[in-house]
Amino acid sequence: MELIKNLQWRYAVKKYTDELVSEDKIDQIIEAINLSASSCGIQPYRLIVVTNPEIRQKLAEGSFNTQILNSSHLLVFAAFNNITSEYIADYVAMMEKKRALEVGALNPLKDAVTSFFFTQTPEQHAIWSAKQACIGLGTALIAAAELKVDATPMEGFDPELFNNVLGLSEKNLHASVIISLGYRDTANDYLASMSKVRLPIDQFATKIK
Amino acid sequence: MELIKNLQWRYAVKKYTDELVSEDKIDQIIEAINLSASSCGIQPYRLIVVTNPEIRQKLAEGSFNTQILNSSHLLVFAAFNNITSEYIADYVAMMEKKRALEVGALNPLKDAVTSFFFTQTPEQHAIWSAKQACIGLGTALIAAAELKVDATPMEGFDPELFNNVLGLSEKNLHASVIISLGYRDTANDYLASMSKVRLPIDQFATKIK
Repeated sequence: MELIKNLQWRYAVKKYTDELVSEDKIDQIIEAINLSASSCGIQPYRLIVVTNPEIRQKLAEGSFNTQILNSSHLLVFAAFNNITSEYIADYVAMMEKKRALEVGALNPLKDAVTSFFFTQTPEQHAIWSAKQACIGLGTALIAAAELKVDATPMEGFDPELFNNVLGLSEKNLHASVIISLGYRDTANDYLASMSKVRLPIDQFATKIK
Repeated sequence: MELIKNLQWRYAVKKYTDELVSEDKIDQIIEAINLSASSCGIQPYRLIVVTNPEIRQKLAEGSFNTQILNSSHLLVFAAFNNITSEYIADYVAMMEKKRALEVGALNPLKDAVTSFFFTQTPEQHAIWSAKQACIGLGTALIAAAELKVDATPMEGFDPELFNNVLGLSEKNLHASVIISLGYRDTANDYLASMSKVRLPIDQFATKIK
């Protein structure tokens, strides 16, 4: 299975070479993330792809993850702060148009999703959105591995700093997780030669037959 | 790119045929999930694979998602309720063994991860664990699609019921997200012929160069 080979190939790179990832490959990774599943199908997060060196310098401040600065591209998964009924309505209208349905045909879906979020707090919306971004993160790591692009998923960054520098708060977004992309510096990355560690399958999974 | 084709092929199936997925394919999907990345690398969730019909009948009670019962296999992602220092110590010991390192060689990692979780509440641990399970969910959907196995990721289930029926609470786990697996019933699934809807790329992603 290609996926298993690709997952075994990848690891969380600590040190990258200076080689840049081509824009074509970045675009394929973005497209894959955009195709990821999300609950209710409403994609409650956005992706910011940062290459600008001054901005990356600012984002890297205070983090032990030097890959924020020293990698080819930085992907910032920015989850929604809350889910508004306007957003749901706009998204459902897009669905109706794309599926050549009559306006209002998906009102039952719209009403069900709107009611669901109406009972939740903005904090719950934000957590839920960040979970959906994690599905996209899973896709991004696999997309990169298929293209033999290295990646480092990271939570070790200053979310407030990211929100400020990237102007996320005024867009109803918050930085939830990030990935650096590039090419592993095998000679200088201590992790490059280490075995991948995972639970024995029978500890990880249980079958109830 | 194979991944993009597979993501375009998949959708959240509403109605399955009676065909069962082979155990070999299920095992490949489980292996892929187990290979997923997780923050700090400590895999804070477990997978329960349910085929037992009586148990599935109980799990399906009260849910609008009939796929909980009517599909080949049900995968339950069970996230940790909290992250204990014992768990971290055991996991790090496994890493040392797998990488043929001296006992204690990864103490700095163990201490850093332990300190990180020490500052957080159990509720934060549970949310963090559920996020990691979502990375695994992203992998699972891609694994299934590569094998041309259909899947439905679902949040519409009763977590308390799942925790009780599967005895998750006493294992420090809680059901966070589920996936049914099987084969789409194209003739009877209204979604089978619908176009996939996703945001235009320029609305989803922003490049800061």
